[in-house]
This record gives sequence, structure tokens and C-alpha cells, in this order.
Amino acid sequence: MSNSKKTLPPDSINNPTRRSFLTKGALLATGGVISLAMAPTQAAPITINVPETVTGGRTRFHQIYDVIVVGSGFAGLAAALEAKSHGLSVLVIEKMAVFGGNSTINGGAFAVAGSPQQKEAGIQDSPELMYQDMLKAGRGLNHRDILHVLVNGTQEAYEFTLKHGVRYKPFVQHFGGHSVPRTLQTVESSGAGIIMPMRQSAQKLGVIFKSRCKFESFIQDNQQTVVGLEVKENYYFPDENSGLVKNYGARYGVIMCSGGFSNDLRFRMIQDPQLVSDLDTTNHQGATAEGILAMLKIGATPVQLDLIQLGPWSSPDEKGFGNVSQFNTIAGYPMGIMVDARTGKRFTNELADRKAREDAILAQRDEQGKPVYPICFTNKEGAKNAQSLPAALKYQVAWQFDTLKQLADHFALPYENLQKEVDEYNTAVANGSGDRLGKDVSRAISLAEGPYFAVRVWPKVHYTMGGVQINPNAQVLNSLTGNPIQGLYAAGEVTGGPHGASRLGSCAVADGLVLGRIAGAHVATQTANPLFSTSDSDNA
Amino acid sequence: MSNSKKTLPPDSINNPTRRSFLTKGALLATGGVISLAMAPTQAAPITINVPETVTGGRTRFHQIYDVIVVGSGFAGLAAALEAKSHGLSVLVIEKMAVFGGNSTINGGAFAVAGSPQQKEAGIQDSPELMYQDMLKAGRGLNHRDILHVLVNGTQEAYEFTLKHGVRYKPFVQHFGGHSVPRTLQTVESSGAGIIMPMRQSAQKLGVIFKSRCKFESFIQDNQQTVVGLEVKENYYFPDENSGLVKNYGARYGVIMCSGGFSNDLRFRMIQDPQLVSDLDTTNHQGATAEGILAMLKIGATPVQLDLIQLGPWSSPDEKGFGNVSQFNTIAGYPMGIMVDARTGKRFTNELADRKAREDAILAQRDEQGKPVYPICFTNKEGAKNAQSLPAALKYQVAWQFDTLKQLADHFALPYENLQKEVDEYNTAVANGSGDRLGKDVSRAISLAEGPYFAVRVWPKVHYTMGGVQINPNAQVLNSLTGNPIQGLYAAGEVTGGPHGASRLGSCAVADGLVLGRIAGAHVATQTANPLFSTSDSDNA
Repeated sequence: MSNSKKTLPPDSINNPTRRSFLTKGALLATGGVISLAMAPTQAAPITINVPETVTGGRTRFHQIYDVIVVGSGFAGLAAALEAKSHGLSVLVIEKMAVFGGNSTINGGAFAVAGSPQQKEAGIQDSPELMYQDMLKAGRGLNHRDILHVLVNGTQEAYEFTLKHGVRYKPFVQHFGGHSVPRTLQTVESSGAGIIMPMRQSAQKLGVIFKSRCKFESFIQDNQQTVVGLEVKENYYFPDENSGLVKNYGARYGVIMCSGGFSNDLRFRMIQDPQLVSDLDTTNHQGATAEGILAMLKIGATPVQLDLIQLGPWSSPDEKGFGNVSQFNTIAGYPMGIMVDARTGKRFTNELADRKAREDAILAQRDEQGKPVYPICFTNKEGAKNAQSLPAALKYQVAWQFDTLKQLADHFALPYENLQKEVDEYNTAVANGSGDRLGKDVSRAISLAEGPYFAVRVWPKVHYTMGGVQINPNAQVLNSLTGNPIQGLYAAGEVTGGPHGASRLGSCAVADGLVLGRIAGAHVATQTANPLFSTSDSDNA
Repeated sequence: MSNSKKTLPPDSINNPTRRSFLTKGALLATGGVISLAMAPTQAAPITINVPETVTGGRTRFHQIYDVIVVGSGFAGLAAALEAKSHGLSVLVIEKMAVFGGNSTINGGAFAVAGSPQQKEAGIQDSPELMYQDMLKAGRGLNHRDILHVLVNGTQEAYEFTLKHGVRYKPFVQHFGGHSVPRTLQTVESSGAGIIMPMRQSAQKLGVIFKSRCKFESFIQDNQQTVVGLEVKENYYFPDENSGLVKNYGARYGVIMCSGGFSNDLRFRMIQDPQLVSDLDTTNHQGATAEGILAMLKIGATPVQLDLIQLGPWSSPDEKGFGNVSQFNTIAGYPMGIMVDARTGKRFTNELADRKAREDAILAQRDEQGKPVYPICFTNKEGAKNAQSLPAALKYQVAWQFDTLKQLADHFALPYENLQKEVDEYNTAVANGSGDRLGKDVSRAISLAEGPYFAVRVWPKVHYTMGGVQINPNAQVLNSLTGNPIQGLYAAGEVTGGPHGASRLGSCAVADGLVLGRIAGAHVATQTANPLFSTSDSDNA
């Protein structure tokens, strides 16, 4: 196969570059180290002889693609689009019935260092500044090589999303832990505003999507190269008895974008026994660990799996991510304050990084150790961009009050304390600096006037910083040698390292898009070196 | 084989309990999922057919034992002795030229909840109190099931060591983070005082020891049961080209006691990028990660690998564990004070847990971020039990001064501050309580009189809290299913969980001895279920 031949339709037959054979319709026993379940099949399967080293290996693929992407969130779609743009045939599999995983249910907030919106607002920013912010939040535990790649890729990734139809609000927001406002947000205030147009664009370009198709295990040749996947088609999450086993071949690589494990109670409690079942999560049901574990089982390197983030802006009054998280992120924290429900006094910088806020909120307990949910509020002016507020009010997880006195009475807060706290805060806002708790109030607003909108706050398991180790090409690294596992890439939350001890808000979108693109682009450089070959005669 | 037949010499031929065959002297190709290198051999090898499931497997063992223990530290010797006491044939392999690993170079300090020495001193203690101390130091990240087993086993483990010839000092010591004095110490003030008699005892009982024998990989049957090991005999650490590959079979189980990875720079920096090469370690050269990584590769569950402890008592003036670590643990911290080298003022409770002290010391830096080594000292009375002090003085990593003024001048400390600090401390000691930094001074001594002995302090990488997950039987658990990996046990530092975020001093000996014994005892319950069978005819 020549380098110039870039378009490789699924199941195409290439000239053999190594000793190989193909048998159509035959059912062949599996030998060597490749162990395959034999599933019923409708279509004629293709049998491939993977490169022989010691004992030889022969496996039967029901379908062959240039690239298989596991997972359809930010990282998966970016990888698929990038690989497709280089002319490869791409399959994206998703175990759930709907595409997008956690990416569709988050706030659609994307940290970009050096966006046009920043320039318009006169905000000086750079990849280096973003790097320093993330390293600080990460408490120095960040993998610096991946972090560099991440911060250097946000601007291009932003343009890439525009090209594929994503639309952003015309202004930039200030999220906790970032030293300047650098967070863009989709007009929908949701990650679905990225996932939907990108998936439509990918489909138009010919990327193949299969939902209810669950990754089961890797198929490796005798050199441990990943040459494909065992999957279950027609899988109904979480019924492990559902689905038909199939084997897919991947000519140039598999890209794992299978996400984190915040909703995998068993595995997350192994890593942090404090994250018990009555602690809610913002994540969708499918955020489980099997993707990471399968990679570890073929020698991938585990990185910082016990570093698990709780989202410091969610509400105990609703399930999951809900409507309050967005309200707090956009309105409550930057444009309002959060107070101790017993004293009416503030207790943390509302724009500190997530770990600092998480720790401060989790310390709000009574003498028996039971949570005392803090109250976060802003006023009408502060809430003007919080699109989820009407829904939060409707479902009675946010409340409106004309005066501070009414707010205090509703939550049984000591009103005098609260009024004093608001007055003190307003003074700092008027001065543009000097906040007692170190909050950057240069863009904050006075809370002198109502009406007020208030919510209760308690953290939920949100993001797993840990995962498998990758190199700057998004190749998964072998734990013993430190070298890439041939044929295997990973991007997004399934990887570990760039965020260290604590991920900053809006950096997950950046991570997924930037590293996903890198994986898709790198696999496209491998077209001269297919992982296996097919021919229409058995010349073994 | 009946349950009552307990003594199984190496290479003994048992009645087959499953379809199986044995071929002496034959060189057989390897099939199935078991992949073996064929190494030259002197002795006639034994070929075993491991249980067949799908494709069948046949492997050749050069030697067969009931149990193989990997590593010869506290956990390894405890496991070996326990298994041997139940009548099993036991092999202990050690990759280094000398036995004992880190266990021989540590301070030989062993936390026992409820020792005779405690009773003699009128100290009330219990496993429950030790559990609470370890949970507090572990910041709640401890695996409680293993922690329970650990604290409940220390008394029996103590008696077990007495039986095997270990001798302890007649008094009990108060180590940091323990709420009462509960640390016993060998008369040698070294872990060698445990390792040497236990190894002699094991040899007398017939345990086979092989040094320079490196674990390479697991041999598994088609059900993924661990049935043996590939090793390298005559291995010369760290030369990976040295050694002859051999295959050892383990009838009832392999027990991994291969220790932590504090001296594995590459792998420890993947977990914590701050633990760079110019940070010294207290560990021996062989404390590397390959044992953990090999277990992960066959599906073991990684636990908290990034939780890595720095020893808060070591000296920047000598390499490794050195002589100062023991001085500080026994004398400097409980019987003296540690001061900031710039101010002469104390800055941490010298009996806080390791993490608290480690963090406090690592914060002692100048404006450029360079370390400012704190000074720790006590007087002659306080140093009376510090056996390493003469050596420390001889090698000039500790210094003697007649007066506080001389001590202050030597280290360029502000003398007035220092004298004030000592006076204040002495007042608390006289009162038996009320220390400004919360230290338990009820057993401390006045520092009014010299001569004084002083050292400089800087932490070194000491202990990896993380490792593979085990259950209370010390069986290694599969990451996907949570069930035991058949045939595989682990104990000691190679496991993760009991210590959580920070291990308390003298709890590593407790961990190794208690869990090692449990592993050895549990494998001895498996004699009715050999992992494979041998016979003198091929009846396959």
C-alpha cells in the first residue's frame, strides 16, 4: 500500500505487505495468544492472519476499519473527525443508546488560551499562563509533557470546532482557579452544543457510528500489537447478557476515548473509600472503568487513579449534574457569594480551584458529621446568563427572594451576619480588590439590590483525573518499558496526568478536543505501516 | 491427594485429580495462552498439563514447589514460615545477592497493640485504638477490611517472631502519629534483627532459598490461574542480560512479597512527578516496580499508586536510610525538638504523623525554593537509646555540643530565639502537657542540660502506600470482577490500601508480618485443590 492511497473503505482488500492470507466465509479456529469467542454472524467474515512471530496467529474479523474509536464524547469525536480528514475509514462505537456520554450533559464550557473573545475583552492570556494555572491547581502532580501539548492546542481546537458547526456565546467567563477569564461556552450552555454538530459533521464526512456497541476486549497479535477489538453489538446497558460478540479489525489503530469512572462505585471506592454510594455523581450511568481496566490488563500504565474530583457546585436537592451546577458556575460563584448555613458567613474564595472549594464545602458538617449545606446566591443582574435558572426555579432546587431578609429567613440564616457579610463583600467589589478571602472581584457585581436567587450546595463525584499514561502523540505507554503499545491510543478522561491533583473547570473539553485530535492525526501517519494485511488468497 | 497429606516435597508426583499427564525429559512445544521461553537446563524438566478449558495448555516446569514466595523481607519470610509450618514445600526467591531487601536496612521497629512491654509500662492499648490511629494518619483513604486484619494480628505476629528467635528491647517507644507508645524494636535497632533469625529458622525447617533469582513473569493456565513463574537464575541485578530463564511450578499458589517501588525513579515519577532524581531515597537499589506491574498485567487491581511517603527523619548529609533516621525516630523527635534553621523556632509537632511532618519540613525553603534543612537535637539523656548515634558522629552527620550556644553558633541559629524555644518547651515538659504545637510531652524530657546531639533533616522517598488490592485472605483481586485471581497472593509493601494516604512508623513491619502470615496460612488451606496435577503416565 502506498502512502498516497489515503482512502481505505471498510473491508477493502489491500496488497499484502507481509505474509498473510484472507479467507472469506470460513470459520477458523483461533490459535496463538489471541483468544476469541466465536459469535454467530450474518455477514461473511474476513479472516486475517496477523503477523507471525513465535506461534502464529489467525483471527477472524467481522469488519475491518482503518481506525476504531471507542467512545463518542469530545475526545472520541475529535479523534474521529481528525482521522477522517486524513482520508481514513473510521468507526466510532458507543456502548450506550445515545451518543456523547458525559460530554453531552456537562456545561459546554471550554478553556481557550488566546480566544478572539478574550482579545475583544482586552484580556491578556497565553498557553503559558494556562499551563501555570493548571499546574498550580494540580498541586504539581501534573504530567508536564501532556499539559504542554494540551495548553498549546486549545486555540486550534477552538477553530476546529467552529469549522464543524459549534457556536459559542460572544463573551468569555471567569471560572474558578483560572487567573483570567478564558472560558468560552456554547450558546446552548451544554456540551451537547459541541457533540451534536461535531457528530453531524462526522456523519456527513463518512464516519461510521454504532451505538449500543460495547467494547469488550482488545485483540492483539503475537507482538502484543493491538489489531482490533472484541465488541458486543446490540448491547443493552447494563445487561451483560445482552449483545452479540463480534470482532472488528483496526488497520492502523484503536483510539480509546471511553471516559472516566465516576459512576463506577466499586472501582472508585477501591481508589478512594470515602466516595461511598450515598455520595451522588454528576456523571451518566455509563461512566464506568472497564476501558481503563482493559488497557491495564494489556500492560498500560496506571496514573494517579485515586485522584478523583468532586464538583464543588452541585446541589443536594436534585440528582446528577442537574440545573444548579451551571447556575453556580456561571452566576453564583463569579457573580455572587456562598455562605455557611449556620453563620451566614463566607468560608471560601468562590473562585478558588475546585479542590480548594471542594475541601472547604466538605468541611461544612455538624458535630455528628452530617452535612450542613452551604447557601450560594446572587441577584438578578448576576444571574442574567444562567440559562438553567428557570428550570432550577421550576423544580424548586433554586429559590427567589425579594430581599436578603427573606433569603435569610428561608434558610434560617442569622440575618445580621448575612447583611454584614454582603456589605463587606460589596465594599471589596466597589474597590475592585481587597476581598477578605482573596477572591478576584474585579469583574464581580454588588449584591446590594435584589431580587436574589439562592441554591443549596454539596459536592458530587465529577471527574477522575487519573487514567492510563499517554505520550504527546496520545499513544498509550507500556508500564514496564515506557514505550508505546503499538496500535493503541487514548485521549480524554480515560487518560491520566495532565490535570494532576485537581482539574480546573472547562479544561476537560480542552483536554478531550486537543488530545483527541492529536490521536486522530497521529494514527493517520501510520498508513505506510498497517498492523496486519489482507489478501484474497491464502499464501501462508 | 487427601487433605491429611500435608508434606509435599518439591517435585513430588501426586495422584492426578484432573485429566493430566507428565513427561520427564521431553521438550514440548507450548500451546494455549501460556507463552514460555525455552531456556537451557541441567536437570531433567517435568512437563505438566495444566487444566484444559478451551484450547488446552502444556508447559514445562524445571522445578515444582507447593508454594513460591517472591521476595525475602518481612512479608516473604512470614509467609514462607507459615506455609512451611502447615507442611508445604516452600521456595523463596530473591533477585538481589543478599536476602531481606528494605526489611534488613530499616530500624526494626514493630507496632504491636497490646504487647507485654506495654502492659508492664501501664500503657492501655487495643487493636481498635491502633486502627483509629492508622485511619487518621491515612486521611480516611485506608482499605478498612485489610486494616482490621492488620491491627488484629500484631500480637500473634509478635509471638510468632519470638518463636523464631527475634529479640526485642524491654521497653516500648512512642512513634509519631500513634496515640500511645506501642512500638517495639529489635535489640539490634534494625530489621535485620527480624530477618536474620526468621531466615535461619525457615532454613532449619526446610524452606528453600534462592538469591539472585529474579521473578520475570507469571505462568497461567487457560483459566488465568497462576500456576507458576518464569524466573531468571543467576541474575546479577540490575543487568537484564544476566541470568538463565527457568520455569517453576507452584502447586497451591504464588505469594508476591516483592516490596514497593521507592527506588524505581521512572515509575515513581509517573505517579508523582515531584519525586525527581535529586530527591534521595531510603530504599535499597532493588526496590523497583516490576512485581506490581506484572500483577497488573494479569488483571490485578491497582490501588493508590501515587500515594508515596517521604521519611520525615532522614539527613541530607548521608545517602539512603543512614544513621540519622534512627537517631531522629528514637531520640531526636520523641526526646528532643526540631527547629527552623533560620529562626531557631519549632514549626511542627515532632510526634505528628509522617505526612504532617513531611509536609512541614518540605515547606522549609528559601525564597528561591531551595531547601533550608531544619535542625533536630536532643541531649545525652534523650539520646541514650539511639544506637546509631556513635556512627552518625563518626561520619559527621551528627554533631555534639556542650551548650546550646555552641549548637546555635555551629548552625548559625539565632541563639536567643533558640534558648527561648527550649525554655518554653521545658516548661511544657515539666507540666506534662500544654505544648504549643500539640506534642504529647508526657514522656518527653527537659532539654535544660547538655551535652547536645544535633542533626540536619530533609525527607527522602521512603514507602509506597499503593500497590495491588488484596482481600483479607491476602488473595490478589481481579480488577474487573473483584474476585481473587486463583493461585495468586500478595502481602506487604507490594499491596495497597491498609495505610491510606500516610503510613505510620513501625506499621510496615506489622503489615508485612501479619499479612504475610495470612497468605502463608491461606495457601495451606488449598491442598485439596492443587492448581495442576502430575502423574507418571500420559493419560490425556
